[in-house]
Parts: sequence; C-alpha cells; structure tokens
Amino acid sequence: MPHILITSGPTREYLDPVRFLTNGSSGRMGRALAAAALRSGCEVTVVSGPVEIAYPPQAEVIPVVSTAQMLAACQAVFPHCDGLIAVAAPCDYRPLEVRPQKIAKTGRPLHLELVETPDIVVALAEGKRGQWIVAFALETKDRRLRAAQKLHRKRCDLIVANGPSAMHGPDTEVEVLDPQGQVVAQLSGPKEEVALGIFKLIRQRLMKSP
Amino acid sequence: MPHILITSGPTREYLDPVRFLTNGSSGRMGRALAAAALRSGCEVTVVSGPVEIAYPPQAEVIPVVSTAQMLAACQAVFPHCDGLIAVAAPCDYRPLEVRPQKIAKTGRPLHLELVETPDIVVALAEGKRGQWIVAFALETKDRRLRAAQKLHRKRCDLIVANGPSAMHGPDTEVEVLDPQGQVVAQLSGPKEEVALGIFKLIRQRLMKSP
Repeated sequence: MPHILITSGPTREYLDPVRFLTNGSSGRMGRALAAAALRSGCEVTVVSGPVEIAYPPQAEVIPVVSTAQMLAACQAVFPHCDGLIAVAAPCDYRPLEVRPQKIAKTGRPLHLELVETPDIVVALAEGKRGQWIVAFALETKDRRLRAAQKLHRKRCDLIVANGPSAMHGPDTEVEVLDPQGQVVAQLSGPKEEVALGIFKLIRQRLMKSP
Repeated sequence: MPHILITSGPTREYLDPVRFLTNGSSGRMGRALAAAALRSGCEVTVVSGPVEIAYPPQAEVIPVVSTAQMLAACQAVFPHCDGLIAVAAPCDYRPLEVRPQKIAKTGRPLHLELVETPDIVVALAEGKRGQWIVAFALETKDRRLRAAQKLHRKRCDLIVANGPSAMHGPDTEVEVLDPQGQVVAQLSGPKEEVALGIFKLIRQRLMKSP
C-alpha cells in the first residue's frame, strides 16, 4: 500500500507567549487531498499545523505548531513514504528573538527582526531516495513563472500554483506544472474535486502501477 | 431589552497579502458570553475577528479583520448599546508598511517595524454616556496587578483577568476584579459555565433591574 505524507495547514511563529506570525491556511485542501489519497487505497500521514478542521479518521495526523516542528516531524516520516504532497503554508519567517513574557505596550514602535525558517520541501528533497514530491506554490504575482522556478529549486515532480484567494474558502483554482514548465492541468471548483483531479495526475504520472 | 455589544475573536494585521500577525483567540468565550446574554433576554451584537466557530443565530454578528475595522464597527454600534463586554484579543501591533505583493524570500533577515493599533476599549470608554464596560485582560505575569491597572486606564466597571492557556481550549480560569481592586469572583471550568458566572455578576452589579 503506497504511503503518502501530506503537510497541511499553516504554522505559527511566536513573538511572545501570545502573539504570532501566521497565514490564513485552513487545512481544507490538505484534508481534501488526504481523503483523495485514502480513496485510492493509500496509507496517509498528515503533518498539520494548528487548524480547526478535522482530518479523515483513517489518516494518521501529527500536530505541530512551528515550521521547525513541521520539518522535524516530516523528516521522521518521509524516509518511510513513497511520496510527499506539500500543501501546508509554513510560516517562512520567524522572530529572531522570542520573548518569554507578553510584550507590554510602550507607545513606541516595536522593531522586529525576522529570519527565514528552513524550507521544508527543499530539506526533504535533499534526502529523497526515489520518492516523488508534489508541492504547492502560493504566489500573488508572475504565478506561473515563480511556480516553475520553485519546482526546480525544490526538486519537485509537479507543482500546483494557486493564489491567496484559495487560502481559506471552500473553492480553489489551480494550475499544475511539470518539470518542463508545461501546464498539465487547470482545475477549479470545490477543493474536494480539485484534490481528486490533482491526485489523479499523481497516480498517472508519479505512482508505479501495482 | 438591554442591548449588549460583545467584541470577540482575534484580529489580523497583514504584512503582505499572505502573512499576518495575530494570536490564538478562537471566539469561544465570546460565543459563550453571547449565549449567556441572550439567555438573559438581552439583544446582542458581536463584532468578531476571523474565527471558525459559529455564534448563536439570534446574535447580530459583524465580521471584521483588522483592529481598525473592529474599532470602527464598535464605534458605530456602541452609542446604541447599554454595555460592552470586550473579550476580543485585538492584535495590538500592526506593520507600519503593508506590502502589496507577497514578500519574496531573499536569504537575509527581514526588519519589520510595528506600531501600536488603537486600543478599542479606551476609545469606546472616551465616548461612553452611562454605558458599563467589562473588559478581559490577558496577562502572563503579575496578572492581578496588571489587570487592575488596565481596569483604571480603560475606565472599566469590571475586568476579567486570564492567562494564555485560556486562549483556545474549551475550558478557562479567570478572576474578576472591581474598580477597588477587589477580586469579586474566581471562576473556572467550561467557558459556557464561566460565561454564565461572569454574566450573573454583570446583571447583579451593572445592569439596572427592569
């Protein structure tokens, strides 16, 4: 039974015990992809940041908070998997300093120094041994070009390009690009249907027939 | 019929179209207080930041995203209300500059300048004409002292002090302080029960008997 790792949801990078940086990812696309993979008879592990939605009960779910925690959880699971679908929106900057107490307001501006978090897909691609990787790219500008660049930099087999409007709602609109930069699919509609379309492509192009 | 304004949930302060500062407020305590007020026969307006929970259908809900939007919505409603329960956790810093496109990673640190957002309770207290105000204070240190200071600065009638552990879960633990700095109640348990306890205090101490 193929074992698929899915990263899902946002991560959080805390400034202090209360405030954090994040994004509006809801985990809905990750849930839809987990359901599509389970329907195809795959074993599914979801490494998920904090979300309010519930994943399919047949999936193994590993909850994490920060990007570093998401990476560590993935590094433990990925060697045992056949492929990765990286649909999470990990917070890619973290405050250099995390204050142990809630920062009290002073009336003055607060200077925050942010540093980049590790790129989960890049890190997993470095250690891959025959596994396929499908990543999502969220872009607000030059979507197709930037997604193609990400596919190469992150050594993916397919990349799914979408925009911020897809981040929270029930519907989405995506383009799937292959390593030649070709748009191999344009899918739109409810996330459940788009996930079935993406998973069909994965099965056809990346999964060995039994 | 008394009309009560409840602020609830977190707010978001965006850096760019994807990333934002926020906190883990879920809106559950706001929902519980709305239900308690409705049960007492009050009319309820909830001004809420982005949450996944659903408020009681009998409450009027005004959804907002940022702290400035929350303040503007409250300023429109509060003059027609008898009292305010400020349980929202508005983001109290915002990026000075909001980038129109997603900030691309460069490998270098990102300096972010944050400025304070307006304090919603202070702003509403300035314009109050006989309305009562109950605010929540989330503190990680010197909880009782800081809550008492906030009560005075924000000209509240009661203040409910809690900690970050209360922010997301089903349960909470609070202390209610009066303007003399006296702890008038210590309540813990499911948020629905704690909300009933808080609302009972509001009825006894702040609401005119019909």
